[in-house]
Amino acid sequence: MVQRAFYIGRFQPYHYGHHSVIRNIAKEVDEIIVGIGSAQISHTIENPFTAGERLLMVSKSIEEFDVKAYIVPLEDIYRNDLWVAHVKSMVPPFSRVYSNNPLVIRLFKEEGMEVKECPLYQRDRYSGTEIRRRILAGEEWKHLVPEAVIEVIEEVNGVERLKEISQDDC
Amino acid sequence: MVQRAFYIGRFQPYHYGHHSVIRNIAKEVDEIIVGIGSAQISHTIENPFTAGERLLMVSKSIEEFDVKAYIVPLEDIYRNDLWVAHVKSMVPPFSRVYSNNPLVIRLFKEEGMEVKECPLYQRDRYSGTEIRRRILAGEEWKHLVPEAVIEVIEEVNGVERLKEISQDDC
Amino acid sequence: MVQRAFYIGRFQPYHYGHHSVIRNIAKEVDEIIVGIGSAQISHTIENPFTAGERLLMVSKSIEEFDVKAYIVPLEDIYRNDLWVAHVKSMVPPFSRVYSNNPLVIRLFKEEGMEVKECPLYQRDRYSGTEIRRRILAGEEWKHLVPEAVIEVIEEVNGVERLKEISQDDC
Amino acid sequence: MVQRAFYIGRFQPYHYGHHSVIRNIAKEVDEIIVGIGSAQISHTIENPFTAGERLLMVSKSIEEFDVKAYIVPLEDIYRNDLWVAHVKSMVPPFSRVYSNNPLVIRLFKEEGMEVKECPLYQRDRYSGTEIRRRILAGEEWKHLVPEAVIEVIEEVNGVERLKEISQDDC
Amino acid sequence: MVQRAFYIGRFQPYHYGHHSVIRNIAKEVDEIIVGIGSAQISHTIENPFTAGERLLMVSKSIEEFDVKAYIVPLEDIYRNDLWVAHVKSMVPPFSRVYSNNPLVIRLFKEEGMEVKECPLYQRDRYSGTEIRRRILAGEEWKHLVPEAVIEVIEEVNGVERLKEISQDDC
Amino acid sequence: MVQRAFYIGRFQPYHYGHHSVIRNIAKEVDEIIVGIGSAQISHTIENPFTAGERLLMVSKSIEEFDVKAYIVPLEDIYRNDLWVAHVKSMVPPFSRVYSNNPLVIRLFKEEGMEVKECPLYQRDRYSGTEIRRRILAGEEWKHLVPEAVIEVIEEVNGVERLKEISQDDC
Repeated sequence: MVQRAFYIGRFQPYHYGHHSVIRNIAKEVDEIIVGIGSAQISHTIENPFTAGERLLMVSKSIEEFDVKAYIVPLEDIYRNDLWVAHVKSMVPPFSRVYSNNPLVIRLFKEEGMEVKECPLYQRDRYSGTEIRRRILAGEEWKHLVPEAVIEVIEEVNGVERLKEISQDDC
Repeated sequence: MVQRAFYIGRFQPYHYGHHSVIRNIAKEVDEIIVGIGSAQISHTIENPFTAGERLLMVSKSIEEFDVKAYIVPLEDIYRNDLWVAHVKSMVPPFSRVYSNNPLVIRLFKEEGMEVKECPLYQRDRYSGTEIRRRILAGEEWKHLVPEAVIEVIEEVNGVERLKEISQDDC
Repeated sequence: MVQRAFYIGRFQPYHYGHHSVIRNIAKEVDEIIVGIGSAQISHTIENPFTAGERLLMVSKSIEEFDVKAYIVPLEDIYRNDLWVAHVKSMVPPFSRVYSNNPLVIRLFKEEGMEVKECPLYQRDRYSGTEIRRRILAGEEWKHLVPEAVIEVIEEVNGVERLKEISQDDC
Repeated sequence: MVQRAFYIGRFQPYHYGHHSVIRNIAKEVDEIIVGIGSAQISHTIENPFTAGERLLMVSKSIEEFDVKAYIVPLEDIYRNDLWVAHVKSMVPPFSRVYSNNPLVIRLFKEEGMEVKECPLYQRDRYSGTEIRRRILAGEEWKHLVPEAVIEVIEEVNGVERLKEISQDDC
Repeated sequence: MVQRAFYIGRFQPYHYGHHSVIRNIAKEVDEIIVGIGSAQISHTIENPFTAGERLLMVSKSIEEFDVKAYIVPLEDIYRNDLWVAHVKSMVPPFSRVYSNNPLVIRLFKEEGMEVKECPLYQRDRYSGTEIRRRILAGEEWKHLVPEAVIEVIEEVNGVERLKEISQDDC
Repeated sequence: MVQRAFYIGRFQPYHYGHHSVIRNIAKEVDEIIVGIGSAQISHTIENPFTAGERLLMVSKSIEEFDVKAYIVPLEDIYRNDLWVAHVKSMVPPFSRVYSNNPLVIRLFKEEGMEVKECPLYQRDRYSGTEIRRRILAGEEWKHLVPEAVIEVIEEVNGVERLKEISQDDC
């Protein structure tokens, strides 16, 4: 029987912290499902990229891992009590969850799923918040993300977008 | 003609402050409708319990009062201008509102309803915020709620749930 | 341990067919949860009554049974894959489902719940469709529903409402 | 005190039947509110035009009447019990409703509003259904609508749009 | 070809800052579309007035300008990626946007629209936040808004509404 | 520059008709995006399978083609005027659409996208409607779908599910 695992993030943007986690998961299971969380949110300072742009970042980046992957945008439903059912409906069947988010862990546990807690890799260094701060401040950020992520951000003028929407009302 | 009153709370959890208010309302009217507000929200630090769990807390607790009661979960609709119509549609007809919430009072008044303001009983002592804080801090809380509430919280592992979802990302 | 059962209907209006089913369930369990389905729909020919009006019909009618009851309006969520989670969130915990609806049966079974199929009582005779047809045609209908239902329909001018909304555009 | 009236239609498209009704209303009141119903629906055979296109049709057409007008797109909310509250929130205060739709009439009456029934003018001749049928069949239709409506339909390639979306799957 | 421009605000309430901007736009184009943003929000401290009340404020106030205007309530859709499509669907076709809001500017630019940035007039002086603060504090505010706005606020008891909903829980 | 194409279907279930279309598209472009339409609908006679189950069917089946693929569940938004923006937000950027659906073709054309019409392969033979009919009738159907689809349907007890939900009320 195929061992299939579920892992979710917002990936604003996808970075080496996520990449390290997925590399480790890929060693333990046959197939991996990557959920793109808050898929419907974009063009905000906290969530500058669309689900499609993030999907592209993840898909290109994890090509290097030897694992069958399903990358699925997941819109918020704003009801914790329905969230696990929502996820299970939108992605292929899976038997294990990897997460470091307490709410995600609790919700899956209440449904009787196996959950493995996986701390983020070098969290202070690799963090979406920090990367967005660096982009806005004009500091170096490209060493924190896989090459494919840089390409996507450039293709969609992501740096310009983030800078513009973070301006004060003029 | 039956005198029916409406009272709403979030009941996260139901406590002796609510209980005292409902006891007083029960003396003044024939039948009472208790709305479970923000019914769709659960598994958050501010709103740990589901609507069904809260409904059970209220229903078991008010059995001791000699009053016909209707206990109705009410999902938020995120539009104040529709809220009174939403309530009126989901519950039996009523002729009087009891509330201590300024927005609830205003919205019903704009619709021409009779509203009686009813201050919460010993508010500093009996408060959902305080009870959730005590649960998280491992302090005493059971003396602040009716026996039936303790039973529901234990049945659904409520203490564990609240503690887990309040953890920082690990 | 309390044995609690779940039963759902639209109750447009509540009639002796439903009443007979609930009487039988009440004999088998300690407590019964009655879901008011499609709670958000009203003022249509198929669904003339609001959730609150239907809740009142059910509540008054089943007072004669010696059973603890929870009567809960359930709004449609238009996603079958989330429906069981929606129900479980809005009502107290339950361990058995009674239903004669194939979709309801299937959805609960896929979640591993115990389901008992309960055929409606004298279905040709007791049917919401038939009762609404009789009301519109000016035929006898009051012998098909409990006394409390007649009272609610009269209180809200239900016959007039149904006749008016069923008119052709004038 | 200003006498303000409310009238609603889908206007797919706006035609001389609507125009005649609004001309008559304009004689009886100081100001008129025209609701564009089902505002969120477009690009279907029954509802080919967007709310903005329909708003433009109405606004240009009624310029000839000497009346202050407010033309307001109204999205469906799929809950009859909230509909009057929705309308009242989205448009200026009004004291009278004109309608020939039984549901609209009933819903406003239940809220205690004054409703005047106004039969459509020459309904067989002036009808959105008939006009859409004629457009699809390549028959004459322009004599059934005000000049401004023809201009809007041409500006947005409305005839081509309607024909394309009505094709069978190819 | 008609030059039609789009401008959006929340107008809580409409004041001379907005009025000055619209006066200037009216000089540059043939027709102007005024969007009433966050149309579905009312009865909050930040957003006390309904869309219909705000529509009335704008409509009466801009009668003095010699320009064809379309004033359209626009409900939030909570998805930036759909927002421009939402606006374009609900209002007549337009070829230019005026805005001082960075997100609005960015979203329209990504869709290839022409955007003219228009700073608010005397922003410190004319501001909805400041006017609401003055109303709550019992200070002078009527000199900051057009006469028609005062009339609307008085007609709907707006001062009383704002004061009541801003009270603490009692 | 990478040539990326978009193709959408409901895939209830995925069959050799879809498979043939995707094989042909794969020859013409570098990368292909497959949208799973009406992703939120499942457990109905017309739409028995969840988005996740359909995603699995497609993903396993097209492994045989030598093309980079992105397979994305797309929930309905019930507004044609927003649909193209919705799709563009949820999937990676693309420059060409393949479709045989008149509405899809029209909506993308109105947004200025390049659309190639691609007739379904042997439509009478390969059709979701026909396959579901055969499953319900107990006729042969497995020769109409790729091997991976049979496996998914068996894994989720799809035949039993379809048969149960298609029963009359019992």
